[in-house]
Amino acid sequence: MNGIGREFVEKTKDQYEDTTDQQKGVPQPPLQLELDPTDRVIDLPKPSEIKEDDVSLREVIDKRRTLRVYSEEAMTLDELSYLLWCTQGVQKIRPNNVTERTVPSGGARHAFETYLLVNNVKGLKAGIYRFLAIEHKLVEVNMNNDISEKIVKGCFGQKFIGKSAVTFIWVAVRDRMTWRYGDRGYRYMFLDAGHVCQNLYLSAESIDSGVCAVASFDDDEMNRLLNLDGEEQFVIYIGTVGKRKE
Amino acid sequence: MNGIGREFVEKTKDQYEDTTDQQKGVPQPPLQLELDPTDRVIDLPKPSEIKEDDVSLREVIDKRRTLRVYSEEAMTLDELSYLLWCTQGVQKIRPNNVTERTVPSGGARHAFETYLLVNNVKGLKAGIYRFLAIEHKLVEVNMNNDISEKIVKGCFGQKFIGKSAVTFIWVAVRDRMTWRYGDRGYRYMFLDAGHVCQNLYLSAESIDSGVCAVASFDDDEMNRLLNLDGEEQFVIYIGTVGKRKE
Repeated sequence: MNGIGREFVEKTKDQYEDTTDQQKGVPQPPLQLELDPTDRVIDLPKPSEIKEDDVSLREVIDKRRTLRVYSEEAMTLDELSYLLWCTQGVQKIRPNNVTERTVPSGGARHAFETYLLVNNVKGLKAGIYRFLAIEHKLVEVNMNNDISEKIVKGCFGQKFIGKSAVTFIWVAVRDRMTWRYGDRGYRYMFLDAGHVCQNLYLSAESIDSGVCAVASFDDDEMNRLLNLDGEEQFVIYIGTVGKRKE
Repeated sequence: MNGIGREFVEKTKDQYEDTTDQQKGVPQPPLQLELDPTDRVIDLPKPSEIKEDDVSLREVIDKRRTLRVYSEEAMTLDELSYLLWCTQGVQKIRPNNVTERTVPSGGARHAFETYLLVNNVKGLKAGIYRFLAIEHKLVEVNMNNDISEKIVKGCFGQKFIGKSAVTFIWVAVRDRMTWRYGDRGYRYMFLDAGHVCQNLYLSAESIDSGVCAVASFDDDEMNRLLNLDGEEQFVIYIGTVGKRKE
């Protein structure tokens, strides 16, 4: 213990009056990271067209367990699209340029980008993708053969990550939150990441899959692998998903 | 911005080797705060006996919105018991003295106590209660007439808290998490609070109610009102619940 946790709680008591970028008149950061013209964009099945079994909320909450051993069965694109919808789906953009999503976020700031490590999804090459929440599409980020292995190493060799059908890697883009809330916004980013991961747990459970949330990882290495500077953007939470073994 | 958020992320990169209480052989903290012999304990309907409509997960995720305006209809004890079950319900105590609950927690540490501000629940006097997750019961904490008003003030006058049927106030008991994870455990407590609150959102939605998560509050005042020292135990997150207006 170096006391930084306690200090963080203590020093984020300020209620961000007069000092935030929003108060200073700085324009709101964009809702989503920009695309590069050379990026390869991939369509996903539209959420409204995906049929899934009507599973009861209570049943899913009662049954949910962390799952680290997965079947070798591939996930379908429909299933992946459904999980992305349940965790970050954009339902509406309000006129004031704020997104309404399937998950709550402090002040509707929605400070996350969802990166995916795809290992075993029908119709998708293995590699790292980023989810374009507004368009509900994917964009290729890193299609190198050894990226899965490197991500496993970046998570201290937790091998089930490499065996997952897909691993969600949530990246915080901090100014989307701190623009309004200053340093207290760091609390909100961790709280929000919990909301998102819980929806992944429940929605995965509803399609006979399971999740293991991973919060123990090598921050520097994971940020390096995703080309993030670790300050403005950083990996905040990770969740593996795979089909349940029969 | 005082930079504490960034510093917190930076200084919690350590993966708690050799320095945690667990590594030092300190016994695991108790799973739950102790009862005082003079405490008044109140039974709750057993979760297994509560019938609720079979609402589909997907529908609930699609429909969930933050709700700040509530009907004056009281919540029933069955409904409250169901919400407590969905957010902290203990399904099993493993032989190694670890709880399995309806929500995931980093290393199954489950560092929270759930306090309730009861304003309008059939069969319960207004006041502050604490949830005994293991026994699935409530214990009275503060039955003073003005406590609701004080809690509203402790949340900077957000009046809908006083109009809620019940407000969940999650309290972190930090050593239950830091015992294993050291300061990095502070990240996990905030992540976990997000898991819990998301289940409150979804389970409330399934009984025609709605939630507003509250992360903006006067830490010192809220801790004082609940008799917490603010370091070993502190309010980490709050969620109001009330019936939807027709």
